Amino acid sequence: MMSVEIFEGERVDYIIPDQLKIIQSPSVFTFSLDAVLLADFVYVPIQKGKLLDMCTGTGAIPLLLSRRTKGTITGIEIQNKLVSMAERSVALNELKDQISIQHKDILELEDELNEEYDVVTCNPPYFESKNPKDHHHNEHYAIARHEIYCSLDDVVRIAAKSLRNGGKAAFVHRPERLMDLLSLMRMYHLEPKRLQFVYPKQGKEANMILVEGSKGGKPDLKLLPPIIVYNESNEYTEEVLRAYGR
Amino acid sequence: MMSVEIFEGERVDYIIPDQLKIIQSPSVFTFSLDAVLLADFVYVPIQKGKLLDMCTGTGAIPLLLSRRTKGTITGIEIQNKLVSMAERSVALNELKDQISIQHKDILELEDELNEEYDVVTCNPPYFESKNPKDHHHNEHYAIARHEIYCSLDDVVRIAAKSLRNGGKAAFVHRPERLMDLLSLMRMYHLEPKRLQFVYPKQGKEANMILVEGSKGGKPDLKLLPPIIVYNESNEYTEEVLRAYGR
Repeated sequence: MMSVEIFEGERVDYIIPDQLKIIQSPSVFTFSLDAVLLADFVYVPIQKGKLLDMCTGTGAIPLLLSRRTKGTITGIEIQNKLVSMAERSVALNELKDQISIQHKDILELEDELNEEYDVVTCNPPYFESKNPKDHHHNEHYAIARHEIYCSLDDVVRIAAKSLRNGGKAAFVHRPERLMDLLSLMRMYHLEPKRLQFVYPKQGKEANMILVEGSKGGKPDLKLLPPIIVYNESNEYTEEVLRAYGR
Repeated sequence: MMSVEIFEGERVDYIIPDQLKIIQSPSVFTFSLDAVLLADFVYVPIQKGKLLDMCTGTGAIPLLLSRRTKGTITGIEIQNKLVSMAERSVALNELKDQISIQHKDILELEDELNEEYDVVTCNPPYFESKNPKDHHHNEHYAIARHEIYCSLDDVVRIAAKSLRNGGKAAFVHRPERLMDLLSLMRMYHLEPKRLQFVYPKQGKEANMILVEGSKGGKPDLKLLPPIIVYNESNEYTEEVLRAYGR
């Protein structure tokens, strides 16, 4: 077993029981169901390919994707503390050959990206950044959740630029931004192809959307079966447990 | 009980058991679940108001809406045979004071419509009309199902023109046209506000979408709980039976 340093406030959790560990810190950032479902939703090439996860946080999505593909995965994150945790999680899981974490602002990366990736994923900041007073009191959570350093337009535009033609971009977001997300995807020639809605319980409104687009693709949208998160006993449903690898 | 003429090939069916009848002809046109779900989905003012149903066919939607509102309902249909059946169904249900059926082409109507309606519904032709060879062999079904006499752009544009500011337009369509429908709605200032997906069975892809927009509204989309049509025994689920008034 690889050993890495764990700093104060951090802890080692399992994403996939007994198989995949992640270092996180409740006072800085912890991964959520959104990342797990996006990593399960997105198309991936199995044998090879180049995958990119923007706004990777503590690297949950690259870690999860490593179980679905032999391709190489790059995670990009703007916050230094999260990059540090993600890098150590990669080491802890002995995935350094497959996953690299870069400490960068995706906006700075825009000129470098050159239609090279097969797949791009992003679990972007969800909330528009109009009033700093509404931001999360914790700076790290605020940056991860609010469009402080990058807007939805930035995310979709840069995802499109980084993909080869025919490459896939997959996003997770909130239903109230569905229109904006779909419009931006079409604008940047990432034609939406697969759309899935996540409902917290049967009979409740959806609270999460998963969308995958194909660069330069033709209009042909499929609406996948709904994901229901909790059953009537407030336990995870089979499909969510499966996404968590149980 | 009102009596009306029933012509050869026609029959009187119930939409709502023991309560609401409809004259239809299997060789010309029969209403479908799409109309029933749209009439159940759309917002309606209860006490008064002006409602418009475009491409009304045999009038299923106006008939169903009459059970939810005291407002007046106009149904517009281009096919004479369907207009005749719709008018006689209105008479048969003694709803002439509330429902009027007009034999018109909505394209001709565009100049007359003047932001007067509170609600517009439309179950439009679903299929693009690129190749006449793909059309239904039956002319009546072909006109109802293919964009022969009106395109989706026409439908959304004219719906928008007919509505007062703040009025609601609701449409039912196929998932593969979701992007086009949402884009057109935004283009014509019918901001999508409520979106609902209809899945034939649990675990299957959606095969129908219901969308409601508000004229001049602000972006704020809600994703309603999914509708599942059939249960595991291939019987209608409770929610579909409820839409059918059972």
